[in-house]
Amino acid sequence: MTAADAPDLSRCSLNTATVKRATLEEAVALAAEAGYGAVGLWRDRVQEIGADRAATVVADAGLRVSSLCRGGFLTATGADDVAAALDDNRRAIEEAATIGTRELVLVVGGLPANSAPGQGPRPDAGPADRDVVAARGRVTDRLADLAPFAADHGVRLVLEALHPIFAADRAVLSTLGQALDLAAPFDPAVVGVVVDTYHVWWDPDLRSSVARAGAEGRIAGYQVCDWVLPLAADPLLSRGYVGDGYVDFATITRWVAEAGYVGDVETEIFHQEIWDDDPRHVVATVADRYSRHVLPHLTAA
Amino acid sequence: MTAADAPDLSRCSLNTATVKRATLEEAVALAAEAGYGAVGLWRDRVQEIGADRAATVVADAGLRVSSLCRGGFLTATGADDVAAALDDNRRAIEEAATIGTRELVLVVGGLPANSAPGQGPRPDAGPADRDVVAARGRVTDRLADLAPFAADHGVRLVLEALHPIFAADRAVLSTLGQALDLAAPFDPAVVGVVVDTYHVWWDPDLRSSVARAGAEGRIAGYQVCDWVLPLAADPLLSRGYVGDGYVDFATITRWVAEAGYVGDVETEIFHQEIWDDDPRHVVATVADRYSRHVLPHLTAA
Repeated sequence: MTAADAPDLSRCSLNTATVKRATLEEAVALAAEAGYGAVGLWRDRVQEIGADRAATVVADAGLRVSSLCRGGFLTATGADDVAAALDDNRRAIEEAATIGTRELVLVVGGLPANSAPGQGPRPDAGPADRDVVAARGRVTDRLADLAPFAADHGVRLVLEALHPIFAADRAVLSTLGQALDLAAPFDPAVVGVVVDTYHVWWDPDLRSSVARAGAEGRIAGYQVCDWVLPLAADPLLSRGYVGDGYVDFATITRWVAEAGYVGDVETEIFHQEIWDDDPRHVVATVADRYSRHVLPHLTAA
Repeated sequence: MTAADAPDLSRCSLNTATVKRATLEEAVALAAEAGYGAVGLWRDRVQEIGADRAATVVADAGLRVSSLCRGGFLTATGADDVAAALDDNRRAIEEAATIGTRELVLVVGGLPANSAPGQGPRPDAGPADRDVVAARGRVTDRLADLAPFAADHGVRLVLEALHPIFAADRAVLSTLGQALDLAAPFDPAVVGVVVDTYHVWWDPDLRSSVARAGAEGRIAGYQVCDWVLPLAADPLLSRGYVGDGYVDFATITRWVAEAGYVGDVETEIFHQEIWDDDPRHVVATVADRYSRHVLPHLTAA
């Protein structure tokens, strides 16, 4: 479909969150038209049309599903909240199996003191609600609860370390090494990790953690977007196109390749201006940045 | 001066950055009046009156200087910029010696791609300017350059790990463990580390790193302020009073105490509303929060 000298986008995946305004059908059509090999799907867009229909849309376009985003939020303390979290994650596992991906990305959740993502602590939050060590322990417990169900469905629970800027309100899991420690008790086919440049680029242990993740067979995905400054008012929306910020994509991509990763590379960007842009232009820009800053480093020398 | 049942503020230190509008004399007078044992000084306020005069002001008030903030910014690449950084740090070492503290806090600097703190990359920034591994290597080189001069002056170079939110523009040193690795080649009397709750509270390795820092004799200071949300537009100004955010001060303070730290506890808050407040009220609030959230945990059981 593309010219002989066109860049190879066979491992390039469009995460639907990057084109937030597009429906699943629109995002899939744009990715296929641009020559991408895969899409990463968010559950909101899947649920709009149902997982069965989503699977058909993607397959008919000749694309793979590189991951489903996202399950998680496993740090609740009360019995009802724990049960609700487990129920929701079981539904996510079923959706992943239906749409044909084995990789379900999990954002593990923040501190119980948290009132709402991005907001301050609950007025009644006490010391126990700030106990990050205990919150991490509950993540381990919930993984153990969910692992058998995931294994039965051929789905992997993919732990995503989030940048420490989100440790209070979204994820008490902040480094790839910590994700690997959490995953260690489980079969690598059932609990894996994703390397997201935005979240881990700063980590002094990144090279060794990526190598360890590869050696353990746990790299379930590689997500790329850039760390840009100044931060947006909502830091969640502060990601940039690959190449617009501070991340050393050549080096990190080489580390991921050297770790043996041969899967898809998802571009997942949350950014208001990019969301407001023409999705076709966004898809073209993502492909261009992937081709220039990621693809040349994606095959280990 | 205080009532018999008043809290013991003998280890409580006021960092002058917390009362940014106050002159050094005003800050010292307020701290002494409130019963603090020490002050942490920023170089701008020292330089306004000269280091000799600053030393006299603090000594006359019966206070200690817990630290001088700050040297650092050691990641430059060009020969002129490297020479300028070394010159500035030698002056900071001399100032520390003159004002009577052995602890000179260093913020090591960000990526060369950085245009200015909080801003985007330089338009001409290339891949080498984003090489965080190389930038860290230059910090090691500059520490080796400065260590003999610091030792001669009886001053310790105190590495401050900054929250990864500042990795691009202010410090490629992001964890206490990384700071200890950087410090390892040097005598603990010459290169130490500071534990700042705002920067390290999220770190999954914090407990072991604090214990290691204590065992190595490198804990040069304990700084406290809270991680609050939502983040301020300038995240540098996003710190809060102890108790207003998500940090588990009971636990971290206990770890620091168990590591054998018996020095001063500096409250260093950058926050516009706190800066705009009456400094006397700020000093009273800092003392109250210290007494309630830090002091009870500061002596190992």
